[in-house]
This record gives sequence, C-alpha cells and structure tokens, in this order.
Amino acid sequence: MRFARLIFAMLLPAALLAPVILHAGEHPKLIMTRAGVEKIKAELGRVPLFDATLKKVRAQVDAEIEKGIDTPVPKDYSGGYTHERHKLNFATMQKAGVLFQILEDEKYANYVRDMLFQYEAMYKDLPLHPKERSYARGKLFWQNLNDSNWLVYVSQAYDAIYDWLSAAERETLEQNLFRPFADHISIDSPQFFNRVHNHATWGNAAVGMIGLVMGDDELVQRALYGVEDDRNGMGDKDDDGGFIREEGQQPGFLSNLEEPFSPDGYYTEGPYYQRYAMYPFLVFAQALHNVKPEMGIFEYKDGVLLKAVDALLNLSDADGEFFPINDGQKGMSYHARSLVTAVDITFHVGGQDPRLLGIAEKQGQVLLDDTGISVALAVRDGKTQPFEKKSINLSDGPDGKQGGVAVLRYGDEDLTLVYKYAAQGLSHGHYDKLSFSLYEKGEEVLQDYGLARFVNIEQKGGGNYLKENTTWAKQTIAHNTLTQNETSHFQGKYEIGSKHHSELYFYDDSNPDVQVVSATETNAYPGTALKRTMAIIKNEKFSKPFLLDILKVVSDKENQYDLPFYYMGQVMKVNFEYTIPVTLSVLGEQNGYQHLYLEGKGRPASGNTRFSWMANDKFYTLTSVTEAADELLFTRLGANDPEFNLRRDAAFMVRRKGSGTTVFVTVVEPHGSYSPVSEIALDSNSNIAGLKLVYDDEHYTAVSIEDLEGHTGMFIMSNKDATTSKQHELKIDFKEYSWSGPYSYLGL
Amino acid sequence: MRFARLIFAMLLPAALLAPVILHAGEHPKLIMTRAGVEKIKAELGRVPLFDATLKKVRAQVDAEIEKGIDTPVPKDYSGGYTHERHKLNFATMQKAGVLFQILEDEKYANYVRDMLFQYEAMYKDLPLHPKERSYARGKLFWQNLNDSNWLVYVSQAYDAIYDWLSAAERETLEQNLFRPFADHISIDSPQFFNRVHNHATWGNAAVGMIGLVMGDDELVQRALYGVEDDRNGMGDKDDDGGFIREEGQQPGFLSNLEEPFSPDGYYTEGPYYQRYAMYPFLVFAQALHNVKPEMGIFEYKDGVLLKAVDALLNLSDADGEFFPINDGQKGMSYHARSLVTAVDITFHVGGQDPRLLGIAEKQGQVLLDDTGISVALAVRDGKTQPFEKKSINLSDGPDGKQGGVAVLRYGDEDLTLVYKYAAQGLSHGHYDKLSFSLYEKGEEVLQDYGLARFVNIEQKGGGNYLKENTTWAKQTIAHNTLTQNETSHFQGKYEIGSKHHSELYFYDDSNPDVQVVSATETNAYPGTALKRTMAIIKNEKFSKPFLLDILKVVSDKENQYDLPFYYMGQVMKVNFEYTIPVTLSVLGEQNGYQHLYLEGKGRPASGNTRFSWMANDKFYTLTSVTEAADELLFTRLGANDPEFNLRRDAAFMVRRKGSGTTVFVTVVEPHGSYSPVSEIALDSNSNIAGLKLVYDDEHYTAVSIEDLEGHTGMFIMSNKDATTSKQHELKIDFKEYSWSGPYSYLGL
Repeated sequence: MRFARLIFAMLLPAALLAPVILHAGEHPKLIMTRAGVEKIKAELGRVPLFDATLKKVRAQVDAEIEKGIDTPVPKDYSGGYTHERHKLNFATMQKAGVLFQILEDEKYANYVRDMLFQYEAMYKDLPLHPKERSYARGKLFWQNLNDSNWLVYVSQAYDAIYDWLSAAERETLEQNLFRPFADHISIDSPQFFNRVHNHATWGNAAVGMIGLVMGDDELVQRALYGVEDDRNGMGDKDDDGGFIREEGQQPGFLSNLEEPFSPDGYYTEGPYYQRYAMYPFLVFAQALHNVKPEMGIFEYKDGVLLKAVDALLNLSDADGEFFPINDGQKGMSYHARSLVTAVDITFHVGGQDPRLLGIAEKQGQVLLDDTGISVALAVRDGKTQPFEKKSINLSDGPDGKQGGVAVLRYGDEDLTLVYKYAAQGLSHGHYDKLSFSLYEKGEEVLQDYGLARFVNIEQKGGGNYLKENTTWAKQTIAHNTLTQNETSHFQGKYEIGSKHHSELYFYDDSNPDVQVVSATETNAYPGTALKRTMAIIKNEKFSKPFLLDILKVVSDKENQYDLPFYYMGQVMKVNFEYTIPVTLSVLGEQNGYQHLYLEGKGRPASGNTRFSWMANDKFYTLTSVTEAADELLFTRLGANDPEFNLRRDAAFMVRRKGSGTTVFVTVVEPHGSYSPVSEIALDSNSNIAGLKLVYDDEHYTAVSIEDLEGHTGMFIMSNKDATTSKQHELKIDFKEYSWSGPYSYLGL
Repeated sequence: MRFARLIFAMLLPAALLAPVILHAGEHPKLIMTRAGVEKIKAELGRVPLFDATLKKVRAQVDAEIEKGIDTPVPKDYSGGYTHERHKLNFATMQKAGVLFQILEDEKYANYVRDMLFQYEAMYKDLPLHPKERSYARGKLFWQNLNDSNWLVYVSQAYDAIYDWLSAAERETLEQNLFRPFADHISIDSPQFFNRVHNHATWGNAAVGMIGLVMGDDELVQRALYGVEDDRNGMGDKDDDGGFIREEGQQPGFLSNLEEPFSPDGYYTEGPYYQRYAMYPFLVFAQALHNVKPEMGIFEYKDGVLLKAVDALLNLSDADGEFFPINDGQKGMSYHARSLVTAVDITFHVGGQDPRLLGIAEKQGQVLLDDTGISVALAVRDGKTQPFEKKSINLSDGPDGKQGGVAVLRYGDEDLTLVYKYAAQGLSHGHYDKLSFSLYEKGEEVLQDYGLARFVNIEQKGGGNYLKENTTWAKQTIAHNTLTQNETSHFQGKYEIGSKHHSELYFYDDSNPDVQVVSATETNAYPGTALKRTMAIIKNEKFSKPFLLDILKVVSDKENQYDLPFYYMGQVMKVNFEYTIPVTLSVLGEQNGYQHLYLEGKGRPASGNTRFSWMANDKFYTLTSVTEAADELLFTRLGANDPEFNLRRDAAFMVRRKGSGTTVFVTVVEPHGSYSPVSEIALDSNSNIAGLKLVYDDEHYTAVSIEDLEGHTGMFIMSNKDATTSKQHELKIDFKEYSWSGPYSYLGL
C-alpha cells in the first residue's frame, strides 16, 4: 500500500505534493467560510434567488424541528422508513447548520447538536445493518454508500456548529461517532473504500471532509490515497455486477478523479451516475479548495472537474433531462440538487461563466454558501446568458482514448442525436456499442430504455436494481443497435466488455446542416467489424432535419442481424404486408429476447421499407434500404415480466438472416405535426421518395436520397481514410465524384 | 311537411311566431355588424387580445394570398389534399372578409371575390364527390357535413364583401353558387338536412346563414324548420351506425336546439361533439340575433344555448380538455376555435360573466367581431375572474329526464370523478352505463378510452372512424363499468340502447368532503338491476381524497361479472398471488374481449384485494372487497389489431363468476408522489388497512373503511328511498345508526 502510494504520487502535479498542513483557522471553513458568511449576511434580503432558497430551506428545517428528532434503529432497505428517515436527518442537519451560520439562531445549532448526540449514543454499539445484500454493509444504512452520504452532509453540519460546541462535546462526538464512522467506511471496508467507482468517491469524500473539519490529516490522507488493505475483493463483483476492484487501480479520491473522467470531462459510467458522483467530487474539492488551496484541486488534470460539469450539462435534452446512457433513470435532470452544487461551485471557482446563470435561473435555487451567493448576486445583477447547447464530441477513458459519446444537435435542440461509441462504463455499463437515441425538443423519438429500476421506491424490489436490469435493460437487443445471432455484445459479459471500447472514425460538426459522426466496433462480435456513420442533415426543401444512419457490417461468416428502432408513440402506416399472430409469443429465449413479444411480422414490398408513426403529436417516418429476404418485425416489451417491472414499449426491427458483409441504410425523418385541438395534420407524410445504397465496397460507401420532387442528394464516405486533407475520387453510375476528407454530401 | 311544421310551431314561444321580415339594412349584418365594425376601428391598437389576434390572422391570410388561390377538383377523404385545401379556403375566406371590414384594404375583398368566382366556375358542373362512403355525399367534400362547414364560413365572407360587390357579381354568385349549394345540402339531401343530429345542425346553419345574407326568407325558413321530403332514410343508419332519422322527430334548427340539449345544457352526444356542434348553433344564433332580434333566439328553451356553453366548459379537466364521454378524441379542449366562438358570444350576449374572461385569457385569442371586441375590452379593463369549476350534475334528454352526467370535484380539481348515467347519446354513444373516469389535476387516473379514430389523419383510415371504434371503443368492456356474461349493455345494439337511459338515484355535493352520486340501470341487462354509488371522500388524516365505489348488482340468475379499472401507468405491487402466461392469448372472442390479452391471473389472498400503481409520478392504490372465488385479471389492449390502431393500455379486472345478487366495493385512493429528480418517494403506500361490506340487503348497504391507525369510517345508504327528509335507523354489529336522507357517512 505504501509502495502503491509512492508510485502514484510520482504521477501527480507538483502542487499536490506540497506538504500537507491543515489550516488551523476558525470554523466554518469547509464549504461555508467565515468570509462567505459575512458576505451573505451583508447582502441578505436583497438577493432574490438566495433569499427565496433561504426561505424555503428555513421552512423545511423549521417543520422538521417542529416534528422532533427521530433516529430509529436501522432496519430497512431504501424506500423503507428507517432508510428514508436517516436520509432526511442528514439533509436536515446540513441545512440547519447553514441556517445557524446565516441567521445566528441557536435553535438550529441545538437541533444539530441534539441529533448528533442521539446518533453518538446509538452508534457506539451499532452492529452492521441487518440487511445482508450489500458487498459493503453500512451501519445506519444497508450499504456503506449511504453511510458515506450521511457523513458527507453531517461533516458540513458539524463544521457549522464546531466553534459553538464545547471542546468536551467535540471530543465526545469525534471519539464515539465521527472517527468510528469514518473507520467503518474506510479501514473496515477497503473493498468499498479503495475502489475506482462512485461508491468509493462518496466514501473518500466523507472521510476527507470529516478529516478536514476535525483537523485530522490522517483521515484526509486516507481520503486522498486510500487505506491499506489485503486486496480483499479483487476480482469479485459488486451488487451491480461490476468488478469491485481491478488490478492496477490505485485507491483514493485522486485516483477516482483520474480514472473515470476523460480529459473532456465525460464520466465513464454515464451522466446519471456522473450527476450522482459530482456531488462528492465537487463538495470535497470545494472543501479542499477552501482548506488546502495550495493543492489546486480544481486545476487537477487540466481542470477536469469543471470540464466535467460542462460535459454533464451538455449531456441533457432540451428540458435538462440527462440522456439515459448506461444505467440511468429517466427524468433525472439538471434540476437535481447535485447539479445546483455543480453549477454554483463551477460558477464561483471556474471563471464566472454567465451561461451557468441560465441554468441556475431554471434551477430556481442556489446553495446557501459562498458559491450560492456569488450566483445569486450575478443573477440579480442581470449577468445571465442562456446555456445554449451545441453539438459536442466527448472522449471516454482516463486518457480520452477509449471511444466516446457524440451529441449532434440541430438548431435549438430541434433534433438531437446521442451516439454512443464509448467504453463499457464500469458496472453500470450496457452492452450497446454504436447505439443511439434521438430527441426532438426534449421529447424522445427513438428511445434508450434506461435502467430497470424504480430508485427508492420500496415496493419495487426495495428501490434497488431489478433483475430485469440485467436480463433486459443491459442487453444489446434493448438498444437501437445491431445484435448478431441473438447474442449480446461481448456475450453480455462484463469481463470481456470492460476490456474493449469502440473507436471514433471521424466527427465533424463544422457545417450545421450536415453534421456527421462515425465510429467502429470490432470486438463486440469477434470476426465481425461494425462501422456506423450517423448524420444529421437539413435540406432546404424539408422543414425539419433528418437522421441518416449507415451501418456497415463486415463479417467472415454468415449471421443473423437484428437492428431495432425503439420508437415512441403509435404506428401510422407501413408500406409492406405483414401478419399478426393470434397469440403473442416471445421472440427468443435469452439475452433480452425472452422479454419481447412478436406483435407482427412481414417482408419488404420493395427496396425501401417505410414505417411511419406519431408521437407527441408529431409524425416520423423511418425509411430503410431492405432486401427481399429481410424480415420486418413489430416487437413489444413485456414478456417474462412476472412483477410488471417493464414498460410495454414497442420497436420496429429489421432482421437480416444468413448475411455476412452487409449495409443497413436508414433515414429517420421527423415531419409535420398534429393538433388535437385544431385537428389539423400538417406534413403528415414522408418527403423521401427513395433511399438507395448506390455504392459499397471496402473503400467507399455511397447513399442517395431522393425527395418527392425528384431531387437527389448523395452521401459518400471513405471507409479507409478519415483524414481531412485526403483527396478522393469515385465513379458512381458513370458520374465522377471528387472530394476531400472522410465524407462528401451533395444536397438535394 | 306543412302539417308537421304547423304542429311544431304551436309548441314555440310567441316570439318565434312573429312574422318573418328580413331587415333590409346594410352589410355586414350577419356576425359582424356595421356598429361593431365602427367600434373595432375606434379601439384598434389599444386592445391587446384583439390586436394580437388580428395580427396573427392577418399574417395567416397574407401568407395565403401570397401563395395564390387553389380550388382543386374534389377527390380526397379528410386528410387528403383536396379536402384539406377546401377547408383551408373557407377558413381563409372568412378571415379575409373580416380583415376587409376592419382594415378596409381591398386586397382582402379581391381575394374573397376571386376565390368565390373560381368556386362559382367549378360548382356549376360539379358532380357528387367521387368518394362514395357517405350516406349524404357532398360536392366539394365527401360528405355534406363538410360542404355545410364551407357554407357556414363562406356566408360570413360573402356578407363582408356584399356591399362592395356589384349587383351583377352578387347575382352571378347567388344564382350559380350559393343557391345551388344550399339546395344540394337541403332539398337534395333531406336524409342529412332533416335529421336531429349535429350533421343537420351544420346544414341548417349553412342554409340559414346564406339565406340571411342574401335576404332570402325561404332559405331561412328551410333552416329553421327543415325541407319537405319523402321521409327518405327513416330507420336507416348513418356512417357512424346511428339511425339517420327516427319517427316523431321534427326537422330544422329549432328542433335540433330542442332535442339534443337537456334543460341543463348537456348535449346528448357528449362534450366532444357538443364542442363541434356549438359552432353552428352559436354562429347561426348570433346571426339570427343580429338580423332577426325579435326571435329572441338566445332566450329559447330558457336560454339553453348559453347554458350549454357553461355545461361544456364544466365538462373539461383541469387543463381544459374535454372528458371523452362517448366518442371523443382526447386532447380536444376549450382552446378549440369553436370554444373561442362560444365564450365570446356567450360573454357578449349572456350578461358579461367575468369568469368567461378567465377562459378567454387562456385561449389567448378572440373573435374578430362585435363579440370579440367586447371580450378583449373587458380583459383589457381588468374584469377577468378565474373560471373555477365546481361539482355539477347535468341532466340528459330534451326534458332533462333521461339520466345525466355528474362531475364531482374536490378542491381545485385535485380529484375529479366523471360519472355517466346518461342516455345512449345518439350514434356517438358508447355502451357504458354507470361508467366513470377519474382525474387528478388534469391527469387521467382511471381512463375512459375515448374513440378509436385519428381525426383528419389520412394515414389512419382516411381520418375517419376505425372499425375498432365499434369492436372496441364502444363496447362495455372498454369502460370502467360492469360487463355481464361478456356481453355489452343492450347487446351492443343501438336499436335497444337508444330506447333506454339510466336513472339518477341521488346527488349531493353539499358537503365538499363527502360528495356522493348514485344512479341505477335496469335495462342494460334484462333481469339484472345495477345501482352504482360513487363518493369522493376527504378524511382529515389522509392527505388526498379518495373514491368510494359501491356497485350493487341484483339479478334473478347467476352470471359472470367483469369489473375493469383502466389505470394509467405501471403496476407497483399487489397483495395476491398470480401467474403470468407464457404466450398471451385473448380474453374472449367478441364484444371487445377479442382485443384484450390476458397478462396475468390470480385469486384474492384475503377479503381485501390491493392493487397499487404509479402514474405521472403519483401513487394510487385500489382496494377491493373480494371473494375467495373471484378471479383477478391483468389485461392489456392490443389483440386482433392488425393496423395497430389501438393503444396498449392496461386494466386490472375483478371477475366474479356464478354470481347473482352481489356487491362490488372498491376504494381508489390517490396517495403520495415521486420525484425522478430528488428520487424521493412520499406516502407511497395505501393508508387503508381494511375495507368491509358490513351490511347489505334490499333496504340498506353499509361499508366500513379502516385506516392504518385503526380508525374506522362508515358509509351507509338506503337502497329504497333517496328522499332527503326520510329518517332511517339500522343496527349493524349491535350498534344503532340513525340518520336522515339517502346516505350517512361517519368519518374516520
């Protein structure tokens, strides 16, 4: 362990090697500072956003104080009473501490102290939590993760009343509560504390923050560099099916900052967990920034923490909801508390970007601390600018070389493509290489299912991951990407998947009317190489942009390929014959197929298969270049779902059997709208007359798109060379095309 | 015919018998008046709502003028080009006429004239519309209904430019276009024009309005009293399956005003069609009011037209969307154009109720005429009051004696029960006696399916009714009411259903915390009497009100009863064992059952069956008093749906077999909420510990409700006597209860 720390330290920037001397100054110093408190008091009553938040928080805390303190003996999983009560307690203590500082009303300090002493009385003899499911059981909660949440918040509450408590009180609390608490989640739980994972980040932050408050450098060192251990848990899996620890990984907060974030600030587990992890990352960083400014924590890894906030905000739809990449519960958005923290801290320490104020205004609240008053003052002073989201390409992996996620946006989020060509994403990753989802103005057009879980809803499996998360949500067939031979990518095995990642072929958002991203995946199915190129194209003659999707498959043997499109809403019309079954049977036996009913099956009537649907009062048409032998499937989720855990979502699926090397060419075209009030349907039919694969070999692939008036557009790409300067020439149907760079698009 | 008119005339109030003398005055006089136009011109630029509407309308019309006039040869069904083009034409002409009057810009008059002459040139030789589906084919459109729409709007356009045209131009238009047009929809189509039906109302208004503009009293008489005919179509059915005409019905506008409206203003077809019909009713009434004020049309039948507007506004949810009673497309709301007309006219002629301004503000537009300027001026002058909807009981039938519809509302539409115990509702009626739907703040909790149609969406059956409207949407099993022996009410036969109606037993909304409606149905299944009593109850200890539903069935033989609840959202938890099938099969062969898959089947585990679900981030629990032999079914819509016309909606269904006289007791309890942002689930479990049928005989039924803390509430009702003054005494479990009136509720 010592050795490991030394090795690691050698990789750190000089600032981090400075001798660790804790500042002795007065409290609060962790998140609030004395100077910040003075500023807040001076401005109070004249900063609308801050004042409104304060009023709301005060009402909440006053109501809790009114109800009285309850620290029940731990018993339940998430969603159950004791779990929710302890959660509420730590949140209320943190708020009460803040109120004490700002309002100087001792009732808040009393409340925090009294509750802390109730915890102190209970904690001394508290055994492990009775629920045994976790790989790292907590004491107040069923898992250390939640215990760590508790300590991150309570450190702040303790900091707020530190000076107000007597030395004897502090001694008792630290001796009987905080130190054993910190020890349990660290020394007693190295399989939790020494991971590179959001769990460990919470643990590290918890121990580090209480250490900073207590002035205990040993705890801070634990937080930054991990604890000694016997490498317990190496190779084992956690509750979510990911490896607890892997060879070569260094423990501690700095390592957690190093590994899961790419240089662009993309967090490898995806935005849902990034949102969750951002809070301990930022709040501990803020504490280090305040107490140990010489560390320069916000400059670490080229300012990755602040970049991560920008990346996260960009991974949201027009309503601010995060794209459910990997495990992600839909509806989570930048309105979450952790994003208020992220935005306020980033604004305060990161150059006061006025676009962040646009988010802060939508959030309608600020932190009640130094950072929040900064934001509220700037908003009051009219500095707000809208946070306009542009197309963005985010690399994945610690070095930015493990694929990534691209988001192509047209206009003011009129059409948004989320294209995933990333690494596995640790234990929360899905087997969905080269998958995508599509949004129109914050509404899903083609969805990513998200996770199979009802977070904190006790009735549904205790609020934890449901087994359908593994049997359905993570499987390849649950996504808008290619499944070969009814088997998931990497056989659905984390051991294999976590060794690989997709590769960017090229990305180009320089022309807003033709934005393209292309990536390859060669490991998901050994012997099969996938290259998927997706373009958002806006033609003058079409009122809306469309998505062109070229999925080139090169395989050394014959396979069955299934390419589903999980549309929302209702089928309008198709241009092929199909039959519907009398009884609904499952599409397959495993790998997610066992959850799909086959609602209909047909064959292409022509070289272009057309599938139209309506969702959210808008029309969409998918046009696919199909072969006569293709099968066209209508599927519906919900089979083998004994607890009704799955939504009854539909897909349109193109199945190509006995095929080796082939190309799937698809256009997804939003068009028109319907009003149930005026009952007028506008532009309700596709504007595309023909879609053709006009050229395909190992060097080039070309697709033509013809509109109803006979105008033809042509998309040509090089399959071998994506360099921008490279000149290409190609003859298609006796016509010469020449261009430079990876692709060329000649508009309609 | 002459005889019929005489008989009918004898029933009319004196004002309507005054000699018909058309006012000779200047145009416009129909909807706009010269005085109104002067007032508008005087206020223009200082009336925000009016000015904004004018600006928008002007932009629309200018854009159309820019595009040029197109009057294509009729060819398509609704949704097709020629249909939509002619619709757009008449709407634009009406608007252009208004703009000419207000702005005095001749380009608008020119546009109307030129388009009218294009129609004149075409109409002379125009055959019947080529599509043959309608029982009354139009010429410009596939049905006379749409031709009538055209003439209602074009009459207004013609009125606007009447004085500006030369006498010769008027002569040509009247001779070649308007008169033959009016003749086609009246004299040539008595099976359409002489009905009591919204179709005929449009026809009557069209002929009457052009008659008023032309000063042709003969046309006005036709409109008011119908045309002579050979009783063609008597007993036949129209496109929707209703009788075209029935014995004893008198034709004409006044008859249409008399028959379908109850004295409370409820329109027997339901709010969706009321919304549709209100426009011709009100616009023709407004025209009669302007041109023939001596008729006192708005006082007719005790002011039924204005009452109807109030009734219609009350038949909407918190978002203003109409309850889909009978055939009704969801999403239609008081934002519809016809409701702008209704609100503006009602405000102008009906006593300037300031609550109507609350609706007008939400509509955000006004009519560009005398009524619209009234509304806009009043809004500008700050007279607006909110339109707060209260509980309301609306009778059905011309005399108010054919059942009705009750809407019980708690708070500010926090919980809304829509309970239907009405007459058949003509051809748009559903077989759903004693059915209900439940809303929480504008969101459906237990839904009424509505219709199976995509109005004006050409891809879906030409935008017309789909066959699933008959095979599913109208059937009893599609509704939250009792189906006996898998057969719909009245065997699903219009001939039988239209002869009967349910009966109100009692209605009491005097106590906002205990509101009750009870009604009976004795004809739906001969030999079986149904009495359904529904109460919205708010207990102090519960944060939300709940619905108590007591459905008492008395039958002379053993039957199978199915009682479904069409919940929205996702199953959370149930308290009984069930199995799910490997393949999904249909629940039955006919009467709607052929469209339902059985997703799961169980038996009660106790005397109380509990079924919890989540919808719109809120929790709900249904608690049902069940018998050990009951079957509990999970159903899913979508079987035998070859065109994917049906939504995949779910129901929880209680099935009781081999039962004669029995009682279904159910509580539907909204509780708590979930936030996907904070991930906190509040109050996610039911607060009800026990529900019991503690007494039931032919005289009394009593139900007890026990909460988690052991408090018990008791609902007792008399089954024989609903008079308010009547005293009752009853001993239940050795305890004496005494009360007066139809029911007693002793709170928890």
